[in-house]
Amino acid sequence: MSELRLNLITREWVVISTERAKRPGEFTNSRSERPTPPPYLHTCPFCAGNEHKTSEERARVGDGKGWQIRVVANRYPAVSIAGEKTRHADALMRSVSGVGVHEVVIEHPAHNTSTALFELRHLENVLRVYRERFTEANRDPRVEHAIIFKNHGEGAGTAVDHPHSQLIATPVVPYQFRDRVRAAMHYFDDTGECLHCAMIKRERSEGARAVIDTEHFFTFVPYAALSPFHTWIFPKRHSASFSDIRDGELTELAYHLKTLLAKFYFSLENPDFNYVIRSSRPQDAGNEYCHWYLAIVPRLSKAAGFELGSGIYINTVLPEESAAFLRSARTE
Amino acid sequence: MSELRLNLITREWVVISTERAKRPGEFTNSRSERPTPPPYLHTCPFCAGNEHKTSEERARVGDGKGWQIRVVANRYPAVSIAGEKTRHADALMRSVSGVGVHEVVIEHPAHNTSTALFELRHLENVLRVYRERFTEANRDPRVEHAIIFKNHGEGAGTAVDHPHSQLIATPVVPYQFRDRVRAAMHYFDDTGECLHCAMIKRERSEGARAVIDTEHFFTFVPYAALSPFHTWIFPKRHSASFSDIRDGELTELAYHLKTLLAKFYFSLENPDFNYVIRSSRPQDAGNEYCHWYLAIVPRLSKAAGFELGSGIYINTVLPEESAAFLRSARTE
Repeated sequence: MSELRLNLITREWVVISTERAKRPGEFTNSRSERPTPPPYLHTCPFCAGNEHKTSEERARVGDGKGWQIRVVANRYPAVSIAGEKTRHADALMRSVSGVGVHEVVIEHPAHNTSTALFELRHLENVLRVYRERFTEANRDPRVEHAIIFKNHGEGAGTAVDHPHSQLIATPVVPYQFRDRVRAAMHYFDDTGECLHCAMIKRERSEGARAVIDTEHFFTFVPYAALSPFHTWIFPKRHSASFSDIRDGELTELAYHLKTLLAKFYFSLENPDFNYVIRSSRPQDAGNEYCHWYLAIVPRLSKAAGFELGSGIYINTVLPEESAAFLRSARTE
Repeated sequence: MSELRLNLITREWVVISTERAKRPGEFTNSRSERPTPPPYLHTCPFCAGNEHKTSEERARVGDGKGWQIRVVANRYPAVSIAGEKTRHADALMRSVSGVGVHEVVIEHPAHNTSTALFELRHLENVLRVYRERFTEANRDPRVEHAIIFKNHGEGAGTAVDHPHSQLIATPVVPYQFRDRVRAAMHYFDDTGECLHCAMIKRERSEGARAVIDTEHFFTFVPYAALSPFHTWIFPKRHSASFSDIRDGELTELAYHLKTLLAKFYFSLENPDFNYVIRSSRPQDAGNEYCHWYLAIVPRLSKAAGFELGSGIYINTVLPEESAAFLRSARTE
């Protein structure tokens, strides 16, 4: 018989149904075999040497000649940097003009690498760029919320192989975010404690779903993980906003992220995945009940009618088994 | 510049971003060309003649020899029909045993047909079976919520071509459902009116997003449709539960569904899609603020990190353009 588990942070129920399950080791890349790409691709706008193919550059790491990381405006922005924020609201229809920030972080000059393979110091620099761009985007008075995310592989929604991630800052607060804030607030009011901090304490003491545990960060598979190997990286120091992360913590976050992505890359055959930084704005960093974190979802299963129609996911691997697999998975 | 629109019923914001847009006529099936399947497939458990390959039969339409529709237990159920409902709840972890109902509705004896191609009377019978199974599943005291859904095509999450749909009845109420009930309740308390009834009135008077309008049903593209051709079929008579649908209304619902699916099939080249019936339980049918409906989502775009991380969708086709296209799309 399956088991339904409630994720208290997202309020989502998950069916843990292992009857059709593959063993963790049986998951392989859903993508078909592809030829190894070259380090430079003439047609790739993100490759070093093709800088003229991107939109406006907003930041870079490295000198004029040899950049290591570039931030550019998205060529087809979901929201535009120029324009006024105007609202329409009547009894049944509400709209806002699509202003905000949409940037691409080109994580590396080379085409044929992967975030999982970066030098630790390089990944730390990528995360530092995230912090800067996130803070900067939130300075825009039209912006109400910002997320940083990565789509890796076609199954995760990207058509561009070159390692990159994105920032989108919207002129509204997503309902999903508001909703989770409300749940966290209720928990705080009931217990006087941050729900996420309580979760870290509990997961560290149980240990069954722990993956990596160091001074400042704790990586684990959530009790109600929504899919195989769905993983969360939580900062141990309570803070509502990613903008608040300190330099020493950046180094350690890079270690957690790199280790986890390398485990995916080498032990799950480089699966498609998304990751996202869920965070409050810098100006809300002092809030006692929100707690920023990084969520990683390998795209090994497909949402279908049941998931769309109920918001309930079906996970075919026990979260405890996913965690045990990831703990012992090789990283090179 | 794009526009963000709020769907007042789901509370989801959608970015309507047409800069990268295809014209509605440019959408083609994302699936690769497949050979036409035969009417009978030796290996298909749903084909007439292979009845021994399915689990327990729970209902059928037609006589013993020539069934037209069969309902069978899902061979790999997400929730089990046997077993006790037990709950575990502590401060941070909540679980329920996976009991409930998981059935497959085999919509037709032939392998090589599609719901869009059914005779109207046949589709009406399928919908009647839905009503019966939905009502029956909700009689189980362990069940708290049930949904009926269809996955058509690999991109919509099915591996089986034979036309079929599913019912899953869970021992918990999905948070997504509770949440929408709460929003509808607030609207009712504020205005004394059902939000969905108000929406029908408004959409019918504006007309720009209307697709099919008959005595008992109204089919339209929502103002904040989450993807191209995302469509809703609303009953005009207020009722919270699909179980409450009358025989004459079933005929008309079949007409709306068949017409819409035929438009998809012939004018969008048989795209992958999901549909789902969103409904309260029969015992809640009298509720003034909930309103059952059928939602259809062609899978022409892919949810990526932004959608996962924010709950905001990006729709590259104006809902008004989707509706205009569907109004004039051919049905044969």
